[in-house]
Amino acid sequence: MTEPRIVTVGAPVKAPVLAPTYEGDFVLDEHLLLECGRALARPTLHYAVYGRLNAARDNAVLVCHALSGSALVGSWWPEIFAPGAVLSLEQDCVVCINLLGSCYGSTGPGSVDPETGETYGPDFPLISIRDNVRAQAELLDSLGIRRLRLVLGGSLGGMQALEWTILYPERVERAVIIGVAPLSAMGLALNHLQRQAIQSDPDWGGGRYLPLRPPRRGLAQARQIAMLSYKSAALFEERFGRNPNRNGEDPWGLDDHGGGLIGGRFDIAGYLDHQGERFMDRFDANAYLAILRTMDTWDPLHGHSAPAEVFGRISAQLSFIGISSDWLFPSEAVRNFACTIRATGVRADYQEMISDHGHDAFLAEQIELVRLLQ
Amino acid sequence: MTEPRIVTVGAPVKAPVLAPTYEGDFVLDEHLLLECGRALARPTLHYAVYGRLNAARDNAVLVCHALSGSALVGSWWPEIFAPGAVLSLEQDCVVCINLLGSCYGSTGPGSVDPETGETYGPDFPLISIRDNVRAQAELLDSLGIRRLRLVLGGSLGGMQALEWTILYPERVERAVIIGVAPLSAMGLALNHLQRQAIQSDPDWGGGRYLPLRPPRRGLAQARQIAMLSYKSAALFEERFGRNPNRNGEDPWGLDDHGGGLIGGRFDIAGYLDHQGERFMDRFDANAYLAILRTMDTWDPLHGHSAPAEVFGRISAQLSFIGISSDWLFPSEAVRNFACTIRATGVRADYQEMISDHGHDAFLAEQIELVRLLQ
Repeated sequence: MTEPRIVTVGAPVKAPVLAPTYEGDFVLDEHLLLECGRALARPTLHYAVYGRLNAARDNAVLVCHALSGSALVGSWWPEIFAPGAVLSLEQDCVVCINLLGSCYGSTGPGSVDPETGETYGPDFPLISIRDNVRAQAELLDSLGIRRLRLVLGGSLGGMQALEWTILYPERVERAVIIGVAPLSAMGLALNHLQRQAIQSDPDWGGGRYLPLRPPRRGLAQARQIAMLSYKSAALFEERFGRNPNRNGEDPWGLDDHGGGLIGGRFDIAGYLDHQGERFMDRFDANAYLAILRTMDTWDPLHGHSAPAEVFGRISAQLSFIGISSDWLFPSEAVRNFACTIRATGVRADYQEMISDHGHDAFLAEQIELVRLLQ
Repeated sequence: MTEPRIVTVGAPVKAPVLAPTYEGDFVLDEHLLLECGRALARPTLHYAVYGRLNAARDNAVLVCHALSGSALVGSWWPEIFAPGAVLSLEQDCVVCINLLGSCYGSTGPGSVDPETGETYGPDFPLISIRDNVRAQAELLDSLGIRRLRLVLGGSLGGMQALEWTILYPERVERAVIIGVAPLSAMGLALNHLQRQAIQSDPDWGGGRYLPLRPPRRGLAQARQIAMLSYKSAALFEERFGRNPNRNGEDPWGLDDHGGGLIGGRFDIAGYLDHQGERFMDRFDANAYLAILRTMDTWDPLHGHSAPAEVFGRISAQLSFIGISSDWLFPSEAVRNFACTIRATGVRADYQEMISDHGHDAFLAEQIELVRLLQ
């Protein structure tokens, strides 16, 4: 979920950041009917293309991003494009599309509703993963991409990748789904607390905040809660332990006025605060809320009695990857999910990425991930 | 950390709630010099006694409570007193003392500083575990209790129990230390986020809030973050899964006004909200902050170069208990801590409580705990 530029915990990203061949907007010319019953009027999808579609149109790859990601996959997943890695700018045409609800170019709560001329704000509807995938399919149609040789993503990106194989079985050859399964009760709990942190910020104002006065503190707190779930206890212990904050604060000391309720921070607290501060400069609170719900509500089996009803039509080869230290989407849950799907007759395999980096490993340990994907 | 009356997740508590033989206040007649360098003027310790001290004065037991506990151990740990369990009202004289900093009778941030005549509020000093133990020793002196046949506690209670054996080796025969070790980086992170939730509530007002307008929402959020760490993912999954909130809310639905940013809650979210609401009616925000720091700063090895310097004088028999599903104080950390102490020549054993209840198991599964302690 962390973009490489703000990873201070993690392996250094070695590959240079790639510029896309094309970055632009696609506007659906009709309403997008949503699973929630509402419709989104002529939504925009912001997207980026790396490489070019070949004459046979059989080299298209779709990369799907996670909660706070953007269409610029070359910036946040550069190692995937390293020579001999997973994708090639010479041979592949890689498309990445910003999620609906986000604040990085696609229509989200901060966009103007063309029907009312007003910003959506808290009126922005619930967008499902399936809604996103249906809109993405229209975009790919417009690019002349009928079939994907590969769709891949981690976390929310993996939800989209799997949903592609369910919704458009004839359009996907292979899917790589990393660190994801329907959110567990613990995952739902973590998202609930993040939502509450934003809602509790008086500047949120029921979602109708002023652009110059967003609920920065609530968003920062939400991000900090999320950071706990993206990393692992082992990583925190190794990097921060019980060290005082590196700026010299004293966790055993008194406040400036001599009181003892707050005191100096430990290093882990300084790190989390830093992460929160950086995030509030780059993300929008309502967009965050919108995508939390996209994440919460994703469960392909919801409303179905048998897995075969849902997964039986998949024709793609699925590769699931669990991360050993992930406690947001535990590797066991990913493996069980893969087994459930495989039991319906789908070609599905499961691999485990051994890493101390927690859920974030697919971004923080890209070289390891590439090794596994090869 | 949860008192039985608010455990809705957990094994039913079978034993009747016990009334103490005596419940009252002890006031230190001098200043308590604190490790932080400040002093607490004539602090009050609120305490409860169950049973009676015998003529030989060799039947005294000290039970130490956790973050949000009280002196009324008979109310929150009744199974420990069940016939044939761990403690006996006929044979033992059980003392339990409310932590300094708490809001259940001992001097805390809500108390009046006798030197200024004003409520401490944010001027309340940092109280260490060691400060508590030194004050407790004076109270026991006043009761004529020189030696403890047993001191026991879970979580923060375990910190006090161990500190007793370090500070007063000649006064303790045996100590049972449950689900605790110095807080890890992940634990410090969880406490930091709880602290922030309270500090971010505009009603907190830098700790100078009005008694009738406390930072309820911030305290509730802190409690909810804590609840995640007191329970386990497995327990949440079993009890709540992805079920909609039992009051009939629809997590896939729109808000009342048709927006999609918030929506209906899942069952786990309803549970957490309920826990938060109950807690804000029973606890004080500044007291919570004070005790978080007591917890954060406890590390017997802090400032020492060798474990033997710290633990070498312990003469009590120590029994450590880790809880298999505890992720706030992982059983591995408890076991390693026990091993470190044992390596200094102390008589220490380690047992593991197998439970899905997480850190809270020592309160939620008392019958299991009793079985282990026998």
